[in-house]
Amino acid sequence: MEEKKTISLDFGNGGLEMQEFIEKFSRGFFKNDKWTNHDEDAAVFKEEASPKLCFTTDSYIASPAFFPGGNIGKLAICGTLNDLVVAGARPIGLSLSFILEEGFPMEDFDKIILSLQEESTKAGVPIVTGDTKVMERGSLDGIVINTAGLGFLEYERDGEIEEGDSIIVSGGIGEHAVALLSKRFEFETTLLTDSKYVGEEMKEIGGKVRLAKDPTRGGLAACLNEIAKKYSLSLEIEETQIPLKKEVRAATKLLGIDPYTLACEGRLICIVSKDKEKEVLTTLKTYNTEAAVIGKVTKKREKGFQVEIKTKLGRRFLPTPSGKIVPRIC
Amino acid sequence: MEEKKTISLDFGNGGLEMQEFIEKFSRGFFKNDKWTNHDEDAAVFKEEASPKLCFTTDSYIASPAFFPGGNIGKLAICGTLNDLVVAGARPIGLSLSFILEEGFPMEDFDKIILSLQEESTKAGVPIVTGDTKVMERGSLDGIVINTAGLGFLEYERDGEIEEGDSIIVSGGIGEHAVALLSKRFEFETTLLTDSKYVGEEMKEIGGKVRLAKDPTRGGLAACLNEIAKKYSLSLEIEETQIPLKKEVRAATKLLGIDPYTLACEGRLICIVSKDKEKEVLTTLKTYNTEAAVIGKVTKKREKGFQVEIKTKLGRRFLPTPSGKIVPRIC
Repeated sequence: MEEKKTISLDFGNGGLEMQEFIEKFSRGFFKNDKWTNHDEDAAVFKEEASPKLCFTTDSYIASPAFFPGGNIGKLAICGTLNDLVVAGARPIGLSLSFILEEGFPMEDFDKIILSLQEESTKAGVPIVTGDTKVMERGSLDGIVINTAGLGFLEYERDGEIEEGDSIIVSGGIGEHAVALLSKRFEFETTLLTDSKYVGEEMKEIGGKVRLAKDPTRGGLAACLNEIAKKYSLSLEIEETQIPLKKEVRAATKLLGIDPYTLACEGRLICIVSKDKEKEVLTTLKTYNTEAAVIGKVTKKREKGFQVEIKTKLGRRFLPTPSGKIVPRIC
Repeated sequence: MEEKKTISLDFGNGGLEMQEFIEKFSRGFFKNDKWTNHDEDAAVFKEEASPKLCFTTDSYIASPAFFPGGNIGKLAICGTLNDLVVAGARPIGLSLSFILEEGFPMEDFDKIILSLQEESTKAGVPIVTGDTKVMERGSLDGIVINTAGLGFLEYERDGEIEEGDSIIVSGGIGEHAVALLSKRFEFETTLLTDSKYVGEEMKEIGGKVRLAKDPTRGGLAACLNEIAKKYSLSLEIEETQIPLKKEVRAATKLLGIDPYTLACEGRLICIVSKDKEKEVLTTLKTYNTEAAVIGKVTKKREKGFQVEIKTKLGRRFLPTPSGKIVPRIC
């Protein structure tokens, strides 16, 4: 990658540029004896073996801050809690930090507060510490929220990933992105964001999966590539099996964007052994009838990785998304 | 206070408006059985009694991001760690979240990264999890950093605050604010920010103080009033004893602002029993020769609080600062 002199929008895109960017600046960070899982979204403190702490953070810059089915407050609770539960933790507390533009409408702020409270209450995870900063009018576009989350590791995973394991997605993809974009570009849709806390599902399936991830920025494509890369896997996806609402299909056609790169905010991608596939799928279907097996692990590789997608026309690689994708989606 | 329709700069000022604002929106937050100290800067998890978790967060919006003696990266590490150590905790890990403007100079970013690494290494507290977001050019003024910090409670305090206890400040006040303002308003000064991690000092004096706080936004005035209010105290401060560098005095005169409302980023205000006063002061003087006893607790009140300051001309109340004070100082 060409050395860039300024921060580019790509650096926050969830794709290749962001990975390279983070890899570069974070050399020297994250490497220490006491915490592990530094390349996951959450960090685990190894001392005091039981209970094991899990710690994560995310900032939310969604634009617009309100969209069909939710707002930035809902994202800020669910997104951070989801990072904890997919890491196998039971969340125990959240921090909350506001960065606000002078002049931001109080009415909107109150709605966001309500959302934060509702989601934190529903999940049963308290907000326990916080901070508020305000920037002068014109120096911030509205509102940014940071939450950090803390939990105790709870689930033992169902062993190592193997050839033949199944890949399950817990519902239709890209719905959050399309709901948000419908507001940004003012097109009509009945679609709502998929933003939700997936802690209940994870409680049920936590011990039955080899791995769970939540595909956010960079969507299905980024998430599958991340998994394949991290565990040196080949994955094979059946395009016809990917749950995709017709509204998402229509909107992505209209906007000329790839649905597989679009953020979800309440979906899981799970890798499960063949013999647990049915049980996990049945459980996930009780939460969302569109949950589906979308492919399998074809090879555990010595080195390298690949994600292939079988389409009606043949096969192609599904690469890590790259470029601007859709900025400010979460 | 008049109901405001929009977010005002005052809401992030560390003074009265911020207190009222936070009190209002945070009703329903922070109240739960499992965490305490919700009105301090850090939250303590009560379960699993030993070790007791301590969790805090802060976002940094300092403008300019670079100033004599430091930058926003140094603030983001030291500020959050200081919140942990004054709460009596030994920090064990930090989260780090960047919100960046498209076009932010990479050269500046690299310097900030270096600062983050240096300060985290010096303090011996690793950054263990992170996040990066980028906003379009014009939608954010440069860079915002959030850090959350996690620690274990360690120090047992030296008993309850009593009438006659001494108030110690660990060095000259307002130096961070003046250093930053000198850059913002382009006046000459040899002053450097006081930004630093105070964990070493706290290790030495942690068990010997009744209470320690770090005066940041709202400065000495906000900090003393916060202490007095929380513990129902009357405090009496000797103006002539407050360490104030002549550069700070000159700059505040020039700018027409009150030095007692100016942020520090590496100072402690400690309340100590009369018989520990000398020992604590001697220790603090090894870190900064300007450490001084600035006053005493005159009464433990049944209800209410007051902070009085004895000047050369007589006595006056030192109120909680109010209004814009100095925005974007940290």
